[in-house]
Amino acid sequence: MNDATAAAAAPVARLIDEFHKLPGVGPKSAQRLTYHLLRIPHEDALALAQAIIELKEKTVLCSVCQNVTEQDPCVICRDDGRDRATICVVEEPLDILAVERTRGFHGLYHVLHGVISPMDGIGPDDLKVGELLARLRGGSVHEVIMATNPNLEGEATSMYISRLLTPLGVRVTRLARGLPMGSDLEYADDVTLSRALENRQDV
Amino acid sequence: MNDATAAAAAPVARLIDEFHKLPGVGPKSAQRLTYHLLRIPHEDALALAQAIIELKEKTVLCSVCQNVTEQDPCVICRDDGRDRATICVVEEPLDILAVERTRGFHGLYHVLHGVISPMDGIGPDDLKVGELLARLRGGSVHEVIMATNPNLEGEATSMYISRLLTPLGVRVTRLARGLPMGSDLEYADDVTLSRALENRQDV
Repeated sequence: MNDATAAAAAPVARLIDEFHKLPGVGPKSAQRLTYHLLRIPHEDALALAQAIIELKEKTVLCSVCQNVTEQDPCVICRDDGRDRATICVVEEPLDILAVERTRGFHGLYHVLHGVISPMDGIGPDDLKVGELLARLRGGSVHEVIMATNPNLEGEATSMYISRLLTPLGVRVTRLARGLPMGSDLEYADDVTLSRALENRQDV
Repeated sequence: MNDATAAAAAPVARLIDEFHKLPGVGPKSAQRLTYHLLRIPHEDALALAQAIIELKEKTVLCSVCQNVTEQDPCVICRDDGRDRATICVVEEPLDILAVERTRGFHGLYHVLHGVISPMDGIGPDDLKVGELLARLRGGSVHEVIMATNPNLEGEATSMYISRLLTPLGVRVTRLARGLPMGSDLEYADDVTLSRALENRQDV
């Protein structure tokens, strides 16, 4: 309990502290969220608490793709309508939502749950890389799309995994780099523009 | 469940929805908070849920000052060391924390739980104004400091309450308006600067 919360009732101070632990929630936001919950009806606040409890108690990682799921295997892995020969490898479960929103991918996924980051002490063994290799052993997968984030750690992780997969005879691709739609050439950063130039496409 | 969460497990989608209902939490933040809770240890996530439950189940409004409290009357109202002749009237419980941080006020508080706002259909009867008047009837309170926010609704509420209190023979003051410390005259807005000029003080 710090100076700011010393005058508040203990349950109020405790919730402010708990909210403050969340990423992107500063002390002021933590206070505002807490007092918001004080004002709203009992059942609305309890619905949030219940949702948190159920998130932790009713979800597991899918034993196939490592996505967060209620039932194992997950909804996507169980879906017979999906192309089982293509696996899209992403860093986090959230990334699956982003790819699904495009409605342009109908294969399966694999969630790494992180990226290789020597600075943070995260190596390949901390990621779900072994589980990915195991999925490829059957030989039914023809293409692995690396959809890690286009930054230093994402690229390094993608490179590392590609090198492991190549001997298995599977085609490894990655998401195209280039100018984002709606952007302005004048304001594009150097790396993006030079990648867009390198990977120029026939019209 | 919207498009963005359709591919997520039901408990994940539900928590994203619940977070999204909080003020200042957009759909992206709601997703990020949810996946953060997925990653952290079970007991850390449950501590947040428990804190929310206790906030609603273990707090009441202080029957004297209307602040949020575990015990009625609250810690401040029970404190014999405080000046019981002075009441600082604030809009929300959070404002008490702000005033307490100054360590410059040693009287009691009164929380209105809102401001008069005809646009939102909030009139004086929706605020804890009657409770304030009841506290003044004993005659032991000599000064009421109006500490509502220095905006349209806050000023109107302050004016309205002042008019109710004046016949009771109590001194009604309000927080000084002027230039905030550390600010720059050049960038001060017109209203603030003209108030600072009007209320100029002898050096």
